[in-house]
Amino acid sequence: MADNRIAIIGTGLIGTSIGLGLAARPNRNYELVGIDRDRAAARTAKKLGALDREVGSLEEAVERAGLVIIATPVMAARRILEDLGRFLMPGAVVTDVCSTKAEVMRWAAEYLPETAHFVGGHPMAGKEKSGPEAASASLFEGATWAVTPSPRADERAVQAVLGLVETLGAIPLYIDPAEHDQYAAAVSHVPLIASVALFRMVRDSQGWEDAALLAGPGFRDMTRLASGDPTMARDIMLTNREAVLHWIGRLEAELRTIRTALESGAEPVYDLFYSTQLDRDTFIQNPPQRRRPEGAEPPSARDAIGRMFVGGLYDKIKEASDRLPAAPRDDRELKRKLGIEDERP
Amino acid sequence: MADNRIAIIGTGLIGTSIGLGLAARPNRNYELVGIDRDRAAARTAKKLGALDREVGSLEEAVERAGLVIIATPVMAARRILEDLGRFLMPGAVVTDVCSTKAEVMRWAAEYLPETAHFVGGHPMAGKEKSGPEAASASLFEGATWAVTPSPRADERAVQAVLGLVETLGAIPLYIDPAEHDQYAAAVSHVPLIASVALFRMVRDSQGWEDAALLAGPGFRDMTRLASGDPTMARDIMLTNREAVLHWIGRLEAELRTIRTALESGAEPVYDLFYSTQLDRDTFIQNPPQRRRPEGAEPPSARDAIGRMFVGGLYDKIKEASDRLPAAPRDDRELKRKLGIEDERP
Repeated sequence: MADNRIAIIGTGLIGTSIGLGLAARPNRNYELVGIDRDRAAARTAKKLGALDREVGSLEEAVERAGLVIIATPVMAARRILEDLGRFLMPGAVVTDVCSTKAEVMRWAAEYLPETAHFVGGHPMAGKEKSGPEAASASLFEGATWAVTPSPRADERAVQAVLGLVETLGAIPLYIDPAEHDQYAAAVSHVPLIASVALFRMVRDSQGWEDAALLAGPGFRDMTRLASGDPTMARDIMLTNREAVLHWIGRLEAELRTIRTALESGAEPVYDLFYSTQLDRDTFIQNPPQRRRPEGAEPPSARDAIGRMFVGGLYDKIKEASDRLPAAPRDDRELKRKLGIEDERP
Repeated sequence: MADNRIAIIGTGLIGTSIGLGLAARPNRNYELVGIDRDRAAARTAKKLGALDREVGSLEEAVERAGLVIIATPVMAARRILEDLGRFLMPGAVVTDVCSTKAEVMRWAAEYLPETAHFVGGHPMAGKEKSGPEAASASLFEGATWAVTPSPRADERAVQAVLGLVETLGAIPLYIDPAEHDQYAAAVSHVPLIASVALFRMVRDSQGWEDAALLAGPGFRDMTRLASGDPTMARDIMLTNREAVLHWIGRLEAELRTIRTALESGAEPVYDLFYSTQLDRDTFIQNPPQRRRPEGAEPPSARDAIGRMFVGGLYDKIKEASDRLPAAPRDDRELKRKLGIEDERP
């Protein structure tokens, strides 16, 4: 039973929400151990029921842990990946929830021992509030969860992370780390920048006090992301700077196009708003679905995390490793192996 | 009883929500008559209980109406103001809910007869969905409702509109029409532009299908305004173009500042997000309050709309008009008279 341990490193909004979701699983057969640089946050997570045990050192957290979940901002994840190797059980599965993936995958390859199986992750979910108090077991319900297995990760490790994702009610999406970072810049990081820019634009103007009186739900929604954790935001920008700068340029180009329409008269302005409304309504009503090649089955991960922790974990890891073919050497090969079509044809 | 009539012109989201709120008032003593260019929309509003009667002509709608509420996009409001004068009862109070105020005030002054009392209005509330089906009696609960009385409007007319605002649970804010349009451009119209720009930026990119798979609640929230009614959006831009272009310029300047921070390293990026988080949290937790001069009482409008419609309306209007001093000649004078501090010191 002591081997059936899941370690959560970082018990903020995301880490605590993961803990709550895992703790709620019926007949669960694993122990949830957590740690946070801010010990009070970890104690709160435990009080909320997201952890069975709160510990004071990384070693205590990950010793005998079969699955280690890094739920910190990106730069803190780097330091943890550097330190983790010494304490990891051979065969342990390591995942993360960081907002950028290419750098994280590089660090995992550089710092983790060969015996560790790293599968990157990024749940597309969040809240304006941070910290364990804002956590909820249903935070990931229906959310896309990007999954980026490292070349070293074996199928059992991928299945464990898919099991985690599905236990939390999220929908896994295989994606290349570099592609992830480009698209995340477009749909997440630059929207955050726009939110900050809109808030600063009004806040720093002379008319702020009067303008604020008129601010309604539109302004509050459009500036919600600006209330997010500044450390997380900084780390995103530092590790995805090039893509973010590219998409800021695209946003500036859109603003110039709209400015031209405004200066050209009623018809182009109407066309702009009309076609955008149509396109967005289509997106909301029929969001693009993940495509699978004809006949390919999705990975049967539904109960992988449960099965993984039914017996003594270490034995199962060994057993599974012996049974499986060697791990594929790169993501594309792995994706083919798992019958997941590459996202870019 | 036939004189106690309120006419709602335009039964979309806002008009129908107003009707629902007014219909719900206990012991109400007025009839709600509505009209919409799209007759099916008006029938839906009636079915939902927002109207007592749905009519087919402007004349039928406003004859013997003591209060006329124009709840259409701005350019349609212009045509209605042009046509309305012929049918209005002398002394009738006319108000609107349009998103821009300077042009509307000009049209009202130009087109309405001297016997009409125009008090402009703009509720800072809305929804991504339009049409009567999306309406709700609680839409305006706690929202700011900008009020811009025309020089010709007497105190009784202002009280009637304040009563309408407070009946719907909103908080009235006196503001100069030109100031309103500047601030609305900052907190409402340019956020709408940003929402459209963000959506188009991703939608028109080659990676749209893949990027959309990663789009989470942040992207959905930041592009929500882009699903609004395109006619309303077009009319806002046509009647507030100068202010909107000014604030787009400010937004572009903010984006350049952020770009510079991203290129300068970790510390300025952290400072940017940290100070913005602090400022926005302060705004959300302690929003600026409308300031009143020491000792001045707020207008006692709570039951003005009710009182207005207790007896035969026409008689009361005449009676009240005889009792009141001449209407003040401009907004500032009116504000002083009502003990409302000017928004700009």
